[in-house]
Amino acid sequence: MKALLLVAHGSRKESSNQEVAQLSSQMQRLVNEKFDFVKHGFLELAEPSIPDAIDNCCQQGATHITVVPYFLSAGRHVTEDIPEEVEIGQKNNPNVEITVSSYLGAQDEIAALLVEAAVYAQGGR
Amino acid sequence: MKALLLVAHGSRKESSNQEVAQLSSQMQRLVNEKFDFVKHGFLELAEPSIPDAIDNCCQQGATHITVVPYFLSAGRHVTEDIPEEVEIGQKNNPNVEITVSSYLGAQDEIAALLVEAAVYAQGGR
Repeated sequence: MKALLLVAHGSRKESSNQEVAQLSSQMQRLVNEKFDFVKHGFLELAEPSIPDAIDNCCQQGATHITVVPYFLSAGRHVTEDIPEEVEIGQKNNPNVEITVSSYLGAQDEIAALLVEAAVYAQGGR
Repeated sequence: MKALLLVAHGSRKESSNQEVAQLSSQMQRLVNEKFDFVKHGFLELAEPSIPDAIDNCCQQGATHITVVPYFLSAGRHVTEDIPEEVEIGQKNNPNVEITVSSYLGAQDEIAALLVEAAVYAQGGR
């Protein structure tokens, strides 16, 4: 059973954490047969933590988890902190196979999305 | 003359700021006739600041500037800080028309991009 785990930074502002939960619901509608379910977790300031989210995935029957970092740049959070938290989850669940994907900001399509936002703001002119 | 101004948070890590500069170059190649040029600016920790970037756009002949926030959630930076900085740029350049677009995280396509990153990480299975 394959799980997709969206990992965000986490915020003191509950509405920002809610945006992440909504995004993971949107993703759930898009994964089709590629993943059996989508969950989300936070690096800090909000729950569930990454290790807790990995536990949750395993309790729901995941044998493979793909972690997707919802981050814009390859800063310390992406290069060090997320791998460390994932490692804790892996140690607690030695039989699950965990893969970490590239972070959002590394996706080529971001440039086009930003241009699209700008075009829309000027009324599609 | 229409300018697109990409606004990022800014980082102490120079490579993260460089990622933003590269992204703005990528956008430059995508804007076609929609915008005459693309520039970038930072909210904090890096140069140019938003007011300086607005000055630069105006010096290069911009009559309209569309500011695109490269941010994932509608936190204080997006709702308060960017509008305040844009207002300073507007006061310094009263004749330019400035529009702020929605932030990156508000784009519907983000969910699909994240799913795509996850599918790619598991080898397209």
